[in-house]
Amino acid sequence: MQGEFSLGELAVRFGLELRGEPELRVSRVATLVHASEGSLSFLANSRYRRQLDTTRATAVLVAPADAESCSVAVLVDPNPYLAYARIASLIHPEVRAAPGIHPSAVISRGARIAATVTVDPLAVIEDGAELGDRVHVGPGCVVQRGARVGADTRLAARVTLSAGVRIGERCIIHSGAVVGADGFGFAANAGIWVKVPQVGSVRIGDDVEIGANTTIDRGAIDDTVVEHGVKLDNQIQVGHNVTIGAHTAIAGCTGISGSATIGRRCMIGGMVGIAGHLTIADDVVITGCSLVSASINQAGSYSSGMPTVQTRAWRRMVAHLRRFGEKEHR
Amino acid sequence: MQGEFSLGELAVRFGLELRGEPELRVSRVATLVHASEGSLSFLANSRYRRQLDTTRATAVLVAPADAESCSVAVLVDPNPYLAYARIASLIHPEVRAAPGIHPSAVISRGARIAATVTVDPLAVIEDGAELGDRVHVGPGCVVQRGARVGADTRLAARVTLSAGVRIGERCIIHSGAVVGADGFGFAANAGIWVKVPQVGSVRIGDDVEIGANTTIDRGAIDDTVVEHGVKLDNQIQVGHNVTIGAHTAIAGCTGISGSATIGRRCMIGGMVGIAGHLTIADDVVITGCSLVSASINQAGSYSSGMPTVQTRAWRRMVAHLRRFGEKEHR
Amino acid sequence: MQGEFSLGELAVRFGLELRGEPELRVSRVATLVHASEGSLSFLANSRYRRQLDTTRATAVLVAPADAESCSVAVLVDPNPYLAYARIASLIHPEVRAAPGIHPSAVISRGARIAATVTVDPLAVIEDGAELGDRVHVGPGCVVQRGARVGADTRLAARVTLSAGVRIGERCIIHSGAVVGADGFGFAANAGIWVKVPQVGSVRIGDDVEIGANTTIDRGAIDDTVVEHGVKLDNQIQVGHNVTIGAHTAIAGCTGISGSATIGRRCMIGGMVGIAGHLTIADDVVITGCSLVSASINQAGSYSSGMPTVQTRAWRRMVAHLRRFGEKEHR
Repeated sequence: MQGEFSLGELAVRFGLELRGEPELRVSRVATLVHASEGSLSFLANSRYRRQLDTTRATAVLVAPADAESCSVAVLVDPNPYLAYARIASLIHPEVRAAPGIHPSAVISRGARIAATVTVDPLAVIEDGAELGDRVHVGPGCVVQRGARVGADTRLAARVTLSAGVRIGERCIIHSGAVVGADGFGFAANAGIWVKVPQVGSVRIGDDVEIGANTTIDRGAIDDTVVEHGVKLDNQIQVGHNVTIGAHTAIAGCTGISGSATIGRRCMIGGMVGIAGHLTIADDVVITGCSLVSASINQAGSYSSGMPTVQTRAWRRMVAHLRRFGEKEHR
Repeated sequence: MQGEFSLGELAVRFGLELRGEPELRVSRVATLVHASEGSLSFLANSRYRRQLDTTRATAVLVAPADAESCSVAVLVDPNPYLAYARIASLIHPEVRAAPGIHPSAVISRGARIAATVTVDPLAVIEDGAELGDRVHVGPGCVVQRGARVGADTRLAARVTLSAGVRIGERCIIHSGAVVGADGFGFAANAGIWVKVPQVGSVRIGDDVEIGANTTIDRGAIDDTVVEHGVKLDNQIQVGHNVTIGAHTAIAGCTGISGSATIGRRCMIGGMVGIAGHLTIADDVVITGCSLVSASINQAGSYSSGMPTVQTRAWRRMVAHLRRFGEKEHR
Repeated sequence: MQGEFSLGELAVRFGLELRGEPELRVSRVATLVHASEGSLSFLANSRYRRQLDTTRATAVLVAPADAESCSVAVLVDPNPYLAYARIASLIHPEVRAAPGIHPSAVISRGARIAATVTVDPLAVIEDGAELGDRVHVGPGCVVQRGARVGADTRLAARVTLSAGVRIGERCIIHSGAVVGADGFGFAANAGIWVKVPQVGSVRIGDDVEIGANTTIDRGAIDDTVVEHGVKLDNQIQVGHNVTIGAHTAIAGCTGISGSATIGRRCMIGGMVGIAGHLTIADDVVITGCSLVSASINQAGSYSSGMPTVQTRAWRRMVAHLRRFGEKEHR
């Protein structure tokens, strides 16, 4: 299921500088350490640079600065990781499922399904749901009433799309993700919580990827919005009425409280906690495990959290902080 | 699927003061910003107060202090959010599924199922499971041996209730939630972990809501207990033998370690970590991303965590703390 | 479904010292507080020691130091929790499902399934998947193309094993877990993210337990590896190309970023955030809610995080830290 390509062909197709024999052929990708003859590797993280000396790859994608250090053929590009992504997609193309609906899937008569769709075993497509061209619904997925899925989107296994949510084109949604569960909205009544109906929906743009077991809640009134090109890792929680701007990427386990508005092209690390009703500007970087409790109005890099030290030292830090908590010093 | 009501009718039904024409009619809810003619809106968070000036809502629910500022009709109540919750439930009532068992569901002969139950496609109900009146089991749910579900409870899609767990009445459990997986219990034997059988169960009270992909483990010996009226957001982890007191609300991504006891009417923010074998008193508020490593014996508001600053400033904070960790300063 | 045993029999079988009548019989386990006649209890955590005075258990497993304090029969062992784990497994043995494939399961013709396997309702086993002897696939599970599952492994309900992953023998994987979703890999191209194909797989050793809704991503090129005897709690996120060393135990909600290497016999608390491309030595203990942003090269106990205090005191701590962030103090 993978192709074989000459280095010359790859250099031409992707506009790369080749230093080495154009007739050499590669048929798979490999890490520098585990490469063998016929492998293409890459160097994108300088901490692995020493591995260039000993790699058995047939060729390595490198930045210009690293081209000299390599004992094997190199394909040179200012962004070797991007070139790698493209070549890897060529060598290991995604296997497209054949169109067709498995007989064990339960498709409501009121669903509108393009002829080119693939529906795997034991999926459920409810009334009024719409699946665009070449949509692939994996095994055990549930697409509820009126949910719409754009062309070429792929749902892995056991994905839930709740009633009325809209998913764009070319999205990938991984197993266990839940799009459109009720937001967490309750009004207090003398110590008892009264549920606030969550009548909004979720709108996901095109080219969005949503990780395994990530949850994106439907809006309370207006919709929760994830714009084009956003990439969400696994186990992220997106509260009701959040907006995530186009091309923002968020790492795993991050939680975003209701009505937060996140800008475009942000990069947010793992396990970041973002409070509700705040705004994060475009082009903001937030490092992992930060706690964002106020708006961030300017592009730049932001952090919080106490890095790990020996438990004994940590106890002293904590004691120090407690003293400052007990009364105002100075 | 939504009703239309006059302001006069709403004022009478919910005991609200009306300032405006009683004949005006509303047929949907909307945010202040997106409201149009026929919409009912509300103001419950002062940060949105300026939106009263420009809203096109037909009427707005407000607190007495805000009644003057509004250019359109107002319905006045000391708790406008609660009034909104009730009116929104009236205008947008939940659609109740028709009773019946989809032929693709797999129902064990030993299950006891009320005649008024709805079971959606591809659900599994195992031996000895009991479903009370008007229970709704969504598509792809699994109700395992001997699990019991009280009247009027609704399981969304792909919920797992493990063997023997008990769910009260009028609960809502969202997609992907898992109630009753084994607790995390292992005894050390010379560097090898030996599994401790988890023979307890889970008891969930009435009127509990459990968010998408939240997990509540079964007890090691005694049961894990979630009392009446508790509201759990998405992706919360509740360890074995935890007790959560009645009417406590917990936001998303919070983790509660084994044998913690949480009081009644607590409000716990998102991504809070709660250590095991501790007690939290009634009426405690814990802000988001806090780390609770010791019991909290008194009602009040508690916090921890370092709010996010520019990464450069954060590095200096961390260096400062490290110095205090290295030796005891005075 | 549980056996009854005399204390004498238990003492002999497990090599325990018995102080009490050997003819006394126990038929269930119980906590000290809730024990009644016929119950076996244990004391492993000194904070519960006072409960020895009033317990109604027929017998209690204790360490030698506690043997005197107990008013009822005692079985004495230096590691009473381990002895408890073994006796509890004897008294409450796991019920093994009868072999057989439920007719509603969808088994591809190209799957290789041992005759002794149990496949529950509505499971999906795709082409090329292999299930070893006595494997139990729970209801609603999905085993995708070419995934292999070793003998005596049990998948609870709604587990996803993605294409090509390998699971060892005697593993337990709890409901909602996803093994083998794509890692989070994207190359930047002028503000747009280009997907990097995730062509590696996941290898899980023998005797591994994986908690509910935990996610373990497939490798980008090489495999993600979880070695023998590892125990993972619920809602853990394991990024691509992580290695977790044998017999390490990790508590719930912890997130491990890509290419982190974790040693053997580590104990990692809940909600710990571990950055990518770092190494943690063998025998490291990390307390809950720590942020690990650099390698840990030596065995020992490590911590971070600010324990919770009253919100008012916390505000002062934060103000203090901010001052140190603003400029370098001396």
